[in-house]
Amino acid sequence: MHYFSDNATPICPSVMTALAAADHPDRAYDGDQWSARLDAAFSALFDAPVSALWVATGTAANCIALATLCPPYGGILCHEEAHVEVDEGGAPGFFTHGAKLMTLPGTGARLTPGTVEARLATIRDDVHQVPARALTITNATEYGLVYTPDEVAALGALAAAHGLGFHMDGARFANAVAHLGCHPADLGWRAGVDALSFGCVKNGGMVGEALLFFGPRAAARAAEARRWRKRSGHLFSKGRYLAAQILALLEDDLWIANGRAANAAAQALARAIPDRLMHPVQANELFVRLSAEQAATLRAQGFDFYDWGEGAARLVTNWAQNAEDLAPLAQALAQLDPR
Amino acid sequence: MHYFSDNATPICPSVMTALAAADHPDRAYDGDQWSARLDAAFSALFDAPVSALWVATGTAANCIALATLCPPYGGILCHEEAHVEVDEGGAPGFFTHGAKLMTLPGTGARLTPGTVEARLATIRDDVHQVPARALTITNATEYGLVYTPDEVAALGALAAAHGLGFHMDGARFANAVAHLGCHPADLGWRAGVDALSFGCVKNGGMVGEALLFFGPRAAARAAEARRWRKRSGHLFSKGRYLAAQILALLEDDLWIANGRAANAAAQALARAIPDRLMHPVQANELFVRLSAEQAATLRAQGFDFYDWGEGAARLVTNWAQNAEDLAPLAQALAQLDPR
Amino acid sequence: MHYFSDNATPICPSVMTALAAADHPDRAYDGDQWSARLDAAFSALFDAPVSALWVATGTAANCIALATLCPPYGGILCHEEAHVEVDEGGAPGFFTHGAKLMTLPGTGARLTPGTVEARLATIRDDVHQVPARALTITNATEYGLVYTPDEVAALGALAAAHGLGFHMDGARFANAVAHLGCHPADLGWRAGVDALSFGCVKNGGMVGEALLFFGPRAAARAAEARRWRKRSGHLFSKGRYLAAQILALLEDDLWIANGRAANAAAQALARAIPDRLMHPVQANELFVRLSAEQAATLRAQGFDFYDWGEGAARLVTNWAQNAEDLAPLAQALAQLDPR
Amino acid sequence: MHYFSDNATPICPSVMTALAAADHPDRAYDGDQWSARLDAAFSALFDAPVSALWVATGTAANCIALATLCPPYGGILCHEEAHVEVDEGGAPGFFTHGAKLMTLPGTGARLTPGTVEARLATIRDDVHQVPARALTITNATEYGLVYTPDEVAALGALAAAHGLGFHMDGARFANAVAHLGCHPADLGWRAGVDALSFGCVKNGGMVGEALLFFGPRAAARAAEARRWRKRSGHLFSKGRYLAAQILALLEDDLWIANGRAANAAAQALARAIPDRLMHPVQANELFVRLSAEQAATLRAQGFDFYDWGEGAARLVTNWAQNAEDLAPLAQALAQLDPR
Repeated sequence: MHYFSDNATPICPSVMTALAAADHPDRAYDGDQWSARLDAAFSALFDAPVSALWVATGTAANCIALATLCPPYGGILCHEEAHVEVDEGGAPGFFTHGAKLMTLPGTGARLTPGTVEARLATIRDDVHQVPARALTITNATEYGLVYTPDEVAALGALAAAHGLGFHMDGARFANAVAHLGCHPADLGWRAGVDALSFGCVKNGGMVGEALLFFGPRAAARAAEARRWRKRSGHLFSKGRYLAAQILALLEDDLWIANGRAANAAAQALARAIPDRLMHPVQANELFVRLSAEQAATLRAQGFDFYDWGEGAARLVTNWAQNAEDLAPLAQALAQLDPR
Repeated sequence: MHYFSDNATPICPSVMTALAAADHPDRAYDGDQWSARLDAAFSALFDAPVSALWVATGTAANCIALATLCPPYGGILCHEEAHVEVDEGGAPGFFTHGAKLMTLPGTGARLTPGTVEARLATIRDDVHQVPARALTITNATEYGLVYTPDEVAALGALAAAHGLGFHMDGARFANAVAHLGCHPADLGWRAGVDALSFGCVKNGGMVGEALLFFGPRAAARAAEARRWRKRSGHLFSKGRYLAAQILALLEDDLWIANGRAANAAAQALARAIPDRLMHPVQANELFVRLSAEQAATLRAQGFDFYDWGEGAARLVTNWAQNAEDLAPLAQALAQLDPR
Repeated sequence: MHYFSDNATPICPSVMTALAAADHPDRAYDGDQWSARLDAAFSALFDAPVSALWVATGTAANCIALATLCPPYGGILCHEEAHVEVDEGGAPGFFTHGAKLMTLPGTGARLTPGTVEARLATIRDDVHQVPARALTITNATEYGLVYTPDEVAALGALAAAHGLGFHMDGARFANAVAHLGCHPADLGWRAGVDALSFGCVKNGGMVGEALLFFGPRAAARAAEARRWRKRSGHLFSKGRYLAAQILALLEDDLWIANGRAANAAAQALARAIPDRLMHPVQANELFVRLSAEQAATLRAQGFDFYDWGEGAARLVTNWAQNAEDLAPLAQALAQLDPR
Repeated sequence: MHYFSDNATPICPSVMTALAAADHPDRAYDGDQWSARLDAAFSALFDAPVSALWVATGTAANCIALATLCPPYGGILCHEEAHVEVDEGGAPGFFTHGAKLMTLPGTGARLTPGTVEARLATIRDDVHQVPARALTITNATEYGLVYTPDEVAALGALAAAHGLGFHMDGARFANAVAHLGCHPADLGWRAGVDALSFGCVKNGGMVGEALLFFGPRAAARAAEARRWRKRSGHLFSKGRYLAAQILALLEDDLWIANGRAANAAAQALARAIPDRLMHPVQANELFVRLSAEQAATLRAQGFDFYDWGEGAARLVTNWAQNAEDLAPLAQALAQLDPR
């Protein structure tokens, strides 16, 4: 019973079926029929022209996006607990050739126009200081919070006003959209987002994430991103198996259904422990006050999860969990001594 | 009927079965039980301690290897038609932070100790010139030729004498071993190879290649390579699906059986056109004299392949082709006007 | 009357004389007789074997040092107001190929073992997080404060215990030594410093700073640093003119005399405005509470300086100022309304 | 009696005078009055708007230029014996973040439109191959040959047609212009050159070269180059001393006078040994057939120079040599056994 992460989940059955269906000879790299359908599929989903690429991982999607949005001598505004800052092993520095992550505070790993503007105001416009050239946010955030379309749009407007490329790490984009019930475009191009890492693996895929570009420069940026993709060793020779997975998740809105399922699972757990929650539960992550003793008790019952600093733990749910799967943990949590 | 490349092939049934078998929750990244078995499986295969990592692609395997063997200010000796030089979109420069590919001539994309030594002799030992720090060869080569164990060992000895890390691009390692009938270690650590890109995708895998390190520094280099793997976005969160594929190919020597099958397919075609061959056929590639008209004739019959300069074409066979599959092309080739 | 920075100062007469004395044909790059004397001159000064290189600027000295101490996938602990973080236009990211500056708080741009250890404790030992590999401090700091030998040694011991290379940005090393009255080695190898940027330009030089390596790995690191120096375009063809300047500053301890003179100038100003000082004045910088109106008043009298946030200003003195030069500003400061 | 290189020469007296004249406090970096005059001075010289920066060395000038003209994933066409390829210690790979030098053959280190076009024709337009994005030539070349305005213009037109940025390494630009007697603009913007490394140090300067940008994108590229200059540690804090040197060389066309003097010196030597010359002598370098024994004879008489492969040597003259200085070597050469 793993609650480490949604990336420990098995593969969604439809994805497995799609892999089998794609198992015929075709052109290599992204010359195949499945890869060729990605732009159209995402354009339909987002109700606007989208340029889409598959890459190996979320780290690659994020960092290729940032490399297209920020020059090596530029800076990228992000939250101080953002995945790109904390958990990508220096990949942003690698892909951008040394661009600077400029970290900002904010509760729940959320940025606001105010914190972004305050930081921009401190940067002198001379060559001694790194100029901000991009802004990246994670939605849902690293604490499972969801930016609303208006909140994203406010940051998008700010980015546009300051000439910053705007990227969204959407490793849990499905969970964000599922929570909001909005149109995906409301968190994308309509809010000024230039590039979106559209998460698939946590949503039921096996390998491969989608990197999307929006807006008038989408095609040019995607062309450049294709150079970066090859250059960083992410151009799979049998790319059709990545494209097929992504298309399977888009088919009949499976991705959003999976996002809803994972969110519902988180709510089921949240109901068991309303007083332990450190953040509102909006997507599929719970941050829970838990003593070392309580954590040990749960682990002894077979539940796995990450500690999150002292006296706290992170529980992540996924699309594959139903009420029956969750009951044991919900029950175990409810039975903990309330302190 | 694709003869573009062995990377257009479907997935080997055993690999598909392995993916299904791995389809259970487990630890993320490479913390799972399948990834944990890689070192032992390759150590058994190579009869010596091996440190093994999965990565997305052959380009990534090659370039992460080179990044561990060569500092940013160093040079990497390679053939002027090597895949790293010609077909990786600048990835070696990216991963090594600007190390220099030092290209050498040689028939059939093969290096010899003589050409390597001659080049080393031209490099002044001062900071104005880039010092050679690594040597990379491809086996089987880009022209389907196979270095023997003795030939590799001679280059390995030279590399050791000059302090060069020695890497082998084994995208078609299985075909090389199948051709030679040697022990895989004879092309690996026994010949002084420090790092081997062990090809899986052309051999029946879906996604993912293995990067192997040999010798006393294997573990330290692999530890560093793991940093590079994360840093370049190649640390898949569901890594078990890559490990499972690789293990499936190692099981019961499936990889070598697949190598033999692809080689046999190439021989079957070669027998139909002995007079058109531009290189001996040792692995699974044929380089064939073919006029533009003849190429068009074949394409009109449904055969796909790459032109290889003027008046020539490349045909690549794969593990999935049997006599029946090959007969139409063999026949079509035999029927061409001999000129 | 510039108080912007000590880098606005003219050239020390002895340096000018040395340039003329070096004005004869000699071997290019660092093959000349002046460059050849650097190691011996600094070894004598530091009472231990030192490997020394000239480079163009302090930024280059700092960043070449960091590139030799930290791998591209590593992290460099520094103060959040350190010059490398704030004022080098991203140069550390460039030279280190994307290594991460890990910023730490501390009054007066000073680090303590406590803040360093606290940060080290937060870094998980896995590939998702960037491992700290180097520590850099500035002495005198960006606020003109001076680390004592004991304070440096405590950080040096910590660095050694954690496998961190230890670098000191000594753009104002002369001012620090002059303030302490200690032996230069007490702030260098005796305190565990591996690499020191020994500032010359602020101390009376025209162009060029010295980069020094101490300890058992000094020669090997200097050899690598020479590769980086060439690779970053810092190997001047007429290097003798840089070496000659540096040697001139070392001659008869001119460097320390200049440091003392600049410090004395700062004290002279400090005495005029004891109540306005935001930090103790230890080296040659004064950080002064000053309203916008007061700043304007001073500027109207011909004094130039940088604002330092709201309600504050930075005044920097230099080796060339004597009591007579300073009197007008001291007087103008003293005459300001005390509020 | 050094004939190693023109970079072993002393400083031109006017440059020394200029250094003394600039020896007053001023704004740091390039905020001073001398630096501010560079654009105008070069615009006057080239009869068109020029954006000009000083940097430490020719390597830095070349590589910053290339970094502004070529993206990290691009390629730079150059001669296989070009300084950037052979003698810059990998600096182009460093500054461009791994862009590929694409080397071309040609007698006397000269490129022709034919060789450039032939190479361009071999590059497939797909992400597997590095796309050419820049072209760089050296004028005068590494063998002392001079491209005429028409020859440069032909390459410039080709570059423009293929979307290549066009850079000229003018370490010996003065010698080229002096040889041709043309207007400097004829080898610059009029011939389609985008960026020119305008050599000063070989021409009588102490430290610092000028990097010039021409054409409609000059200002934007120079702004970007300023970022690279800071980022690579080339923004001297006392930049006025570099600007003053450059301005001194431009004053009264001293630079061209110096170029003429160095060329005349080369001609004087050439006349002594017409039968030994391996290349026409157009600028200030002589490549001379010389047996090991003959080389030893000359060295025994106190003449220093580089061997240039077996049986050959390179002699470089400079602006400071007059007939009297040259007579001993001319005589010694003339007295060698003719074989």
